[in-house]
Amino acid sequence: MKNHLSLGLLAMFSLLSCGINLAVAGQADSRPNILFILTDDQGYADVGFNGATDLKTPSIDELAENGTVFTSAYVVHPYCGPSRAGLMTGRYPHKFGSQFNLPATKDSGGLGLPTDESYISEVLQDAGYYTGIVGKWHLGEMHEHHPNQRGFDEFFGFLFGGHSYFPEQYRKKYQAARDRGLDSAIWQYLAPMQYNGKEIRETEYLTDALSREASSFIEKASKKDEPFFLYLAYNAPHTPLEAKEEDMALFPEIKDKKRKTYAGMVWALDRGISNVVKTLKETGQYDNTLIVFMSDNGGRTDQGASNYPLKEGKNSVQEGGYRTPMFMHWPAQLKAGKTYKHPVSSLDMFPTLATLAGAKIAEDKDLDGVDILPAVQQDVSARPGDVLYVMVHWDAHTNVAARRDNLKVIRTDNGPWRLYDVDADPAEDHDLSKQYPDTIREMVSKMSVWSWSHQQPAFFYNHKSAAQWRLNGMPRFDQTFELKEK
Amino acid sequence: MKNHLSLGLLAMFSLLSCGINLAVAGQADSRPNILFILTDDQGYADVGFNGATDLKTPSIDELAENGTVFTSAYVVHPYCGPSRAGLMTGRYPHKFGSQFNLPATKDSGGLGLPTDESYISEVLQDAGYYTGIVGKWHLGEMHEHHPNQRGFDEFFGFLFGGHSYFPEQYRKKYQAARDRGLDSAIWQYLAPMQYNGKEIRETEYLTDALSREASSFIEKASKKDEPFFLYLAYNAPHTPLEAKEEDMALFPEIKDKKRKTYAGMVWALDRGISNVVKTLKETGQYDNTLIVFMSDNGGRTDQGASNYPLKEGKNSVQEGGYRTPMFMHWPAQLKAGKTYKHPVSSLDMFPTLATLAGAKIAEDKDLDGVDILPAVQQDVSARPGDVLYVMVHWDAHTNVAARRDNLKVIRTDNGPWRLYDVDADPAEDHDLSKQYPDTIREMVSKMSVWSWSHQQPAFFYNHKSAAQWRLNGMPRFDQTFELKEK
Amino acid sequence: MKNHLSLGLLAMFSLLSCGINLAVAGQADSRPNILFILTDDQGYADVGFNGATDLKTPSIDELAENGTVFTSAYVVHPYCGPSRAGLMTGRYPHKFGSQFNLPATKDSGGLGLPTDESYISEVLQDAGYYTGIVGKWHLGEMHEHHPNQRGFDEFFGFLFGGHSYFPEQYRKKYQAARDRGLDSAIWQYLAPMQYNGKEIRETEYLTDALSREASSFIEKASKKDEPFFLYLAYNAPHTPLEAKEEDMALFPEIKDKKRKTYAGMVWALDRGISNVVKTLKETGQYDNTLIVFMSDNGGRTDQGASNYPLKEGKNSVQEGGYRTPMFMHWPAQLKAGKTYKHPVSSLDMFPTLATLAGAKIAEDKDLDGVDILPAVQQDVSARPGDVLYVMVHWDAHTNVAARRDNLKVIRTDNGPWRLYDVDADPAEDHDLSKQYPDTIREMVSKMSVWSWSHQQPAFFYNHKSAAQWRLNGMPRFDQTFELKEK
Repeated sequence: MKNHLSLGLLAMFSLLSCGINLAVAGQADSRPNILFILTDDQGYADVGFNGATDLKTPSIDELAENGTVFTSAYVVHPYCGPSRAGLMTGRYPHKFGSQFNLPATKDSGGLGLPTDESYISEVLQDAGYYTGIVGKWHLGEMHEHHPNQRGFDEFFGFLFGGHSYFPEQYRKKYQAARDRGLDSAIWQYLAPMQYNGKEIRETEYLTDALSREASSFIEKASKKDEPFFLYLAYNAPHTPLEAKEEDMALFPEIKDKKRKTYAGMVWALDRGISNVVKTLKETGQYDNTLIVFMSDNGGRTDQGASNYPLKEGKNSVQEGGYRTPMFMHWPAQLKAGKTYKHPVSSLDMFPTLATLAGAKIAEDKDLDGVDILPAVQQDVSARPGDVLYVMVHWDAHTNVAARRDNLKVIRTDNGPWRLYDVDADPAEDHDLSKQYPDTIREMVSKMSVWSWSHQQPAFFYNHKSAAQWRLNGMPRFDQTFELKEK
Repeated sequence: MKNHLSLGLLAMFSLLSCGINLAVAGQADSRPNILFILTDDQGYADVGFNGATDLKTPSIDELAENGTVFTSAYVVHPYCGPSRAGLMTGRYPHKFGSQFNLPATKDSGGLGLPTDESYISEVLQDAGYYTGIVGKWHLGEMHEHHPNQRGFDEFFGFLFGGHSYFPEQYRKKYQAARDRGLDSAIWQYLAPMQYNGKEIRETEYLTDALSREASSFIEKASKKDEPFFLYLAYNAPHTPLEAKEEDMALFPEIKDKKRKTYAGMVWALDRGISNVVKTLKETGQYDNTLIVFMSDNGGRTDQGASNYPLKEGKNSVQEGGYRTPMFMHWPAQLKAGKTYKHPVSSLDMFPTLATLAGAKIAEDKDLDGVDILPAVQQDVSARPGDVLYVMVHWDAHTNVAARRDNLKVIRTDNGPWRLYDVDADPAEDHDLSKQYPDTIREMVSKMSVWSWSHQQPAFFYNHKSAAQWRLNGMPRFDQTFELKEK
Repeated sequence: MKNHLSLGLLAMFSLLSCGINLAVAGQADSRPNILFILTDDQGYADVGFNGATDLKTPSIDELAENGTVFTSAYVVHPYCGPSRAGLMTGRYPHKFGSQFNLPATKDSGGLGLPTDESYISEVLQDAGYYTGIVGKWHLGEMHEHHPNQRGFDEFFGFLFGGHSYFPEQYRKKYQAARDRGLDSAIWQYLAPMQYNGKEIRETEYLTDALSREASSFIEKASKKDEPFFLYLAYNAPHTPLEAKEEDMALFPEIKDKKRKTYAGMVWALDRGISNVVKTLKETGQYDNTLIVFMSDNGGRTDQGASNYPLKEGKNSVQEGGYRTPMFMHWPAQLKAGKTYKHPVSSLDMFPTLATLAGAKIAEDKDLDGVDILPAVQQDVSARPGDVLYVMVHWDAHTNVAARRDNLKVIRTDNGPWRLYDVDADPAEDHDLSKQYPDTIREMVSKMSVWSWSHQQPAFFYNHKSAAQWRLNGMPRFDQTFELKEK
């Protein structure tokens, strides 16, 4: 790190006297390592620490119990692309035209997130962190969108929205398609892994491979002077539902085929995280590593997941869509056995991690989250009175919700506005809208105002959604924010 | 001014010898002060100097009589936001996506005019002027849109499109709404005034308060070395129709309630301007201050205004919509008792004021107006053969008009094209289109060409107009510029 | 050239030793002159070297025979504006919103190609070439779009999409329209020629005038140290069909009036090229001048042109629309009597000419073509396995085709996908789609991916096409890239 002293770091040390400044450059860096674990489509109830009993996550649970569990943690969007866009930028993806998934092609034709948005990885890299991503990217495929161009020293994984798990299967299918002359038309889930832009030949079950590479990165990091930031973006337990037989065999009591497979996939996740933790310990980095664990959005209940007691799942603006399992673990600084019930968001990761790293955030950066650590340590809300929004476009209408403190206002399918106390009633069973019309009115006004910051989409998931958007004159906020339903 | 010598100023002085350059820095600045008074929705006939007999504007009239009255002065748009956008930039607001009002919210959610458009206030500030705005802004609410960021050293007033007049009333309503938990949903006309971004507690009737602050600015300015530019943007006599009882009582002969209130509001305006003039005199700045007086668009005849003899009013592309009362007063340079009948535009203010200030205009600035002062002093047209356009979008169609010299071509509601000699026939009574089909053809061609410079709106007044625009495939210039009506 | 040594040039010479570097500045430049001749709407079969027998092009044919004839040369778009946009930028015009012609007005109201796209003329000018364009521009009319601003030292011709041929006729009509007060409404084909922005009074038949000016440029160039780049953009034989009587009289055997006129127009072209070649020889520049000859798109068979044996013509994505006659002639480097049958594109001109000139291409320039000269000299494909796309929007649908090696996949009017071996079957008579469904699938996928790089149009040919585009939710790629027809 001797030669990586960034301005941001200097700013952090500027609280100290001038004389110490020089000495610092020769000292060990006391900033924590950061391990951000993101799972994919894992349901709120699909971890032991949130009450799962059929599937097992002992290693994850151990970390959660020794850290702080967040019971009201939200991602910024109930499906993948925009959720990750918000995570990396600390901003609502609607503000920079990234409210849809990128086109589901092997080669996205040059599309990707607007490159003028800075990523937390860039901020941490600039602050002198050794940075790596292992797993799924899904933020663009061109040179300028590649993780190695966006703040990551190391990248092992795949650029697309998902991947098949068994190399012996996907490699065969991939080769067969190529033999038929299909290349662009190959399903992206079959394409080879890469390491820093170079195609590699993976042989392990995907979750095991990603865990192996995460451990390898941590080992490399242990030999460096600077702290590390590892973004471990597992694609499990996203479809396709593919688990190892031995992992599924651990759940004989689960009869449902999908759930059994899902449990096997989550078991592999847990095993991987267990190995990663082992490496942290072996390399003496365990105590000063902040581990954050989240899922990128709610689980798909039609694909083996459970968001109990939350309603609905992936794609929904009900709680099941975007409230996710989350914990933070950091022996050096966070007490064990804590639960934090105030709302936090994936939007908060950018300012929280940047602050931890003493990094400089660009002055004109309009962040939508907050540094939550001080509030977490004091167990008070990090955003009293502030609002967390969620918005999803479907064909010709828009679903929205907004949470402020314990209350959540929601509208779906241009139906009636509803109001829930999601603290007391996370299942959204008891609609309070009749009792509190002024709250509806105020929150709808806030949502409507917020929505003006949105930009037309920079890309769409497919040509059909692009055409629908245009033909339907979307986003049709005139309907979305009507106080009365149609 | 000693330390404010701008490049533009240096450019002006570069006509002089080098030796004099240094001396200038120590001399008094001979450039005029500029007081630009903009009233809101005041009709063409709602000043004495344009023939009003029921309402009275003695102070305004005195200034007009001692200066030059413009009988064919146009604003760039027949309603507020785009009119002000054109005034501040010297460019048709359609060219930078500002052809609609900003959303009518208390917090516009980050919207405002594109910040890459430079304002006349910035040009004057850069040229060493002490700059202030008192009154209504309506060009954006975010930090980067704030008057203090856009060339104004001082700002007293409100950021939104309008305001209620009586503090005891609007404060009570504002507080009541807040007590109900409404904040974003509060009508913006009730929100507190501000001074340079800081909320203040105003106690006077609004027009009186603005006049007071204008005088105060002028006093402060008198103690400075540099000349001042004050943009006095009254919101009177815009709705809500709220006048002091004592002011209305001066018009017992007016029976119509709205007209009586309107007369009271205009009386308060006149009183305020009288006080401002008094301050100019008391501080010895009267002689070398250029006062310009205009309204931002035509009056609303359904709200007490009169545009007689012009047809229609606010929102219309008939003369009543965008021809406004105007005078210039500058004892040191402009002779008294003059009338200028050639067409001028609010677009001309940018180059006219910039030239007066010896300011440098960016080379790539594509201005749509001209410096009118030389032509005014010689009583010749400032734009012989040139065209002034006006365009308003309604739901699924576009109304347009274009004036060249004495002729005006107009089309509304996709109806027949009409042609008027608005010099001889300001009431637009005598359609000459049948006699001069080639003139129609030429002017329509010019409008159509001009319209290609328009950009899609950067914002809309509300979500409904946004949705209509998209669903209707607006601007539908294919229909607008058809030579035959549908 | 002594003072024009660009970085690019230095880069080229950097292969040599330092000592030689200085010497080079005082030596003759060995880089070739470049004469790029573009004709307008000339059909594939409207040159003798492609089999024309009724019309005659002896001078063109002689050049072709002494150089390399390209039998599969494509332009990037089957009509004018986008074809030229692709030629000048080396990129698909859809990528920068230039997929339509500019509005057909005398004054385009500020429209033109986005100025952030660099042109081959700029690259060559920067590399020290003396650059000129004679003829039709059609890439924008404003100052910033003018050829003199876009890399051309010299410009003789007209900015618009076409022009009438006989000065005595167009001047009379132009004057009559002006006398009626029409100016903007005058048909642009009648407007005066210009030389470097200055209107001039031309007296010759247009094609003769352009040839005269081309010769004049070449003469001037011969006195300079640096090599020249001349873009000779004839508007012949584009409509209006206007030929000299003496030229038509050479074709008594042609009975069809249009074809006879067309033959006369092409004869004038040939005569002009003959004169230009004569000037090259007289000035000693013939041997080291690369002459490239192309048409900007297919001919209009309803206006006297022939694309035999290719199907359809201008505007079509069948071969007749965008495969054009082409040859390269360069005595010093290219052998005579060659035929090159592999696909090449007008997109290739940018990298090919830039390489020839030793010019530096901006690092972030995303070129769609390749330097073809090495492949041409070895008679191998310049793009084995690579795809050339073509796409045209019509009202509410999009026609597309893609060629890879000998195969072409095509879809028009949202009908069935077809597949042709356009090497063996240039007439596209034998649809192979049933035999090779995987090829269809792969190529459609590639087209679909490619289409994501498209931007919404920056301008339209007229207001009607703009309205249709918006109302129809274009580009409707959802329909375009369906594998099954509707």
